[in-house]
Amino acid sequence: MAAPVVPGVPAAPAIAAGDWLDAVRFDERGLVTAIAQEVLTQRILMVAWMDRQALEETARTGQAVYWSRSRRRLWRKGEESGNVQKVREIRTDCDGDVVLLKVEQVGGVACHTGRHSCFFNLLQDGRWVVTDPVLADPATLYGEQR
Amino acid sequence: MAAPVVPGVPAAPAIAAGDWLDAVRFDERGLVTAIAQEVLTQRILMVAWMDRQALEETARTGQAVYWSRSRRRLWRKGEESGNVQKVREIRTDCDGDVVLLKVEQVGGVACHTGRHSCFFNLLQDGRWVVTDPVLADPATLYGEQR
Repeated sequence: MAAPVVPGVPAAPAIAAGDWLDAVRFDERGLVTAIAQEVLTQRILMVAWMDRQALEETARTGQAVYWSRSRRRLWRKGEESGNVQKVREIRTDCDGDVVLLKVEQVGGVACHTGRHSCFFNLLQDGRWVVTDPVLADPATLYGEQR
Repeated sequence: MAAPVVPGVPAAPAIAAGDWLDAVRFDERGLVTAIAQEVLTQRILMVAWMDRQALEETARTGQAVYWSRSRRRLWRKGEESGNVQKVREIRTDCDGDVVLLKVEQVGGVACHTGRHSCFFNLLQDGRWVVTDPVLADPATLYGEQR
C-alpha cells in the first residue's frame, strides 16, 4: 500500500537506504571477507576485505571497492593499474559474513604479481607449485607509467 | 645431491614434513580463511576457517577439515550429515593467507540450511533474494536420524 503523500515531505522509499547492508555481519573490526569470482572463467581471482562503505559503493557504482588493511583506506580496485572489476552479481552467505562478487576483470589481471588470479599456488606432492604465468609486469601496473 | 647415508639414521626426506604448511600465513588466532569451490559446477559452496592441524589433515586424508570457531574444535565436514567434501586440489593465494579447496561435495549439499551452496542470497534491486532451493531437511541432516 502506498504511503499517504504529505505535501513537501518526500514519501519513504519502499526500502530504506542501507537496509540490505544491515543484513551483512561485519566483524568487530567492521569488515567482511570479500571474494571476487570471474564470471567468464568462474575462477576465484582474489580475496580481500570490505567495510560497510566499500560494499555500499561497490553496489552503487558497479565497480569493486575493498578496504585495504595495510593502507587503512578504501581501495578502489584498479585505481592504479586500471584493472577495475565490473561487478555483475553480489551475494552473501547463510550467515552473512562473507560477500561474493561475480566480476568481469578488466585487463585480465587481478593479482598484484601480474597474474590472472591470486590463487596461483597449487599444492602438489608436498610442495607449492606456481601454475599461472605472469601476464603483466607489476612495475608497469603500478609504476611511474601511470 | 643425495645426503650421505648413515647406517641406522633415516635419511632426511627431500621436504621436511610440514614445510609446505610453513608457507601458509595463519593469523594471530592461528587461522586462515578457507574457501570450498565445487569442481563440477565451479560454484563456491562455503567459506570457513582452518587452523594448521585442519589444513594438514585435509591434505593428508583428502577430506575437508575445518576449524569450528563456535565449537572450538576440528570440524570434519560431513561428520554429522555424511556430506563430506572430497578434496581434489588445494591452492593458496599470493600472500598465503587464504586456502582454496576444489572439492566434490558428497550429497550435493554443503550448507547447513540444506542448500547446495551457502551463497544463496543474491542482491537484487536493493534486497537479498534467495536463489537456491532447500534440497535436504536440516533436521534430517543433523537430527536424531544419524
